[in-house]
Amino acid sequence: MGFWGIEVKPGKPQPYHSDNVEGTLFVTQATLGLGKSTDRSILQCSVGHKSPIFLCSLLPEKTESCPLKLEFKDELVAFSVVGKRSIHLAGYFVADEGDYRL
Amino acid sequence: MGFWGIEVKPGKPQPYHSDNVEGTLFVTQATLGLGKSTDRSILQCSVGHKSPIFLCSLLPEKTESCPLKLEFKDELVAFSVVGKRSIHLAGYFVADEGDYRL
Amino acid sequence: MGFWGIEVKPGKPQPYHSDNVEGTLFVTQATLGLGKSTDRSILQCSVGHKSPIFLCSLLPEKTESCPLKLEFKDELVAFSVVGKRSIHLAGYFVADEGDYRL
Amino acid sequence: MGFWGIEVKPGKPQPYHSDNVEGTLFVTQATLGLGKSTDRSILQCSVGHKSPIFLCSLLPEKTESCPLKLEFKDELVAFSVVGKRSIHLAGYFVADEGDYRL
Amino acid sequence: MGFWGIEVKPGKPQPYHSDNVEGTLFVTQATLGLGKSTDRSILQCSVGHKSPIFLCSLLPEKTESCPLKLEFKDELVAFSVVGKRSIHLAGYFVADEGDYRL
Repeated sequence: MGFWGIEVKPGKPQPYHSDNVEGTLFVTQATLGLGKSTDRSILQCSVGHKSPIFLCSLLPEKTESCPLKLEFKDELVAFSVVGKRSIHLAGYFVADEGDYRL
Repeated sequence: MGFWGIEVKPGKPQPYHSDNVEGTLFVTQATLGLGKSTDRSILQCSVGHKSPIFLCSLLPEKTESCPLKLEFKDELVAFSVVGKRSIHLAGYFVADEGDYRL
Repeated sequence: MGFWGIEVKPGKPQPYHSDNVEGTLFVTQATLGLGKSTDRSILQCSVGHKSPIFLCSLLPEKTESCPLKLEFKDELVAFSVVGKRSIHLAGYFVADEGDYRL
Repeated sequence: MGFWGIEVKPGKPQPYHSDNVEGTLFVTQATLGLGKSTDRSILQCSVGHKSPIFLCSLLPEKTESCPLKLEFKDELVAFSVVGKRSIHLAGYFVADEGDYRL
Repeated sequence: MGFWGIEVKPGKPQPYHSDNVEGTLFVTQATLGLGKSTDRSILQCSVGHKSPIFLCSLLPEKTESCPLKLEFKDELVAFSVVGKRSIHLAGYFVADEGDYRL
């Protein structure tokens, strides 16, 4: 198990796939990055050729963090941002071998 | 297990039933879709002939995301929106065969 | 397991007891009902003769939904509302027989 | 398992210890009590001689409820309030004997 | 298992490592400390030489608490604050020896 975090920047989709280690990624928190724009930044997730789904909408000076509860396993997903400020994602990875259960 | 997401559009109830695969759907997040209306959009859920139950109320420019914790298994439910802007739902599906426990 | 939801109306306490089926009720979401009052509606819970405990406070146009994490098993409880607008409660029921664990 | 709730009043720390029954207390929700003060009320927790730690900060007319996720077992803790309005705490107690796991 | 809490002060990163006891730290809540600054305070987490990741952003008089869901095990992490007011973190520690599962 370990802490997991990425910064998803506007215009730069972040793919996620657990390449080497079998396990489950738990994404539990989204926080707005620094910046001057006062417009919302929306986090979205794309799987394959399906339409992207919004995961949260962060509003500068109003709601800058959002708890999430997402789990990913053996999937190729891509996180991206609609808006001008980046979104930080945090969570943790649990490898399959142990008998750990959330 | 896999990411699950749908966009529920106004005036178009979205039924959910796990047709082919036995398992549990975990719906964990609701996010307001894009649009110009500044009125609230409410997500509701109907089961059979019972009155619909509100699941969350999203307020443009104030509260545009909401964590949920709902589980569905072997049920026919319908999600719908009261309001003018769509609501994106996200979560994940866990098939029964594994020994996975949330 | 199944979706569970009720609407708690002002002045009309809603008792809950799992009569026929042994199991656990998970109440995970509260959402403000429709109405014109702009005052807060508070959800409270009473068990036996103890003083009622507030579970959440919903503010029209500000915070109209609230995640909860409550579990009830073999108890007689009563939900009621302090305020003028109803509160919708949602969650799910898990029967005892399976080996399901949350 | 059973519903658990207390009202923590200003100036009156509330100790908690599971005296008679071995088990775990899950504290999952804090809600602001009634009152006229518009200042924040902060919930804090003290264990032994350590400095108290803030658990949540409730703002009248803005954020009057807060989900928590705290677990206490075989500990003497004291909840107290910084501010003028009380804070209601809700959750549930799970006795050790069963094989229940959260 | 036991309550865990620290206050992370500006300019003073707080390392965390479970030195003596094997187990998992669950960090579940962040609350803004007292102070006069009305600017946001951001909690961030650093692991090794990677860029710090934002975990939440607290806004005085608007959003002063934030639920988290982070788990740390056998890792050296450092929490720090971007901003002028401290952030209190709360959660609990579960030692490995028991058969406790969250």
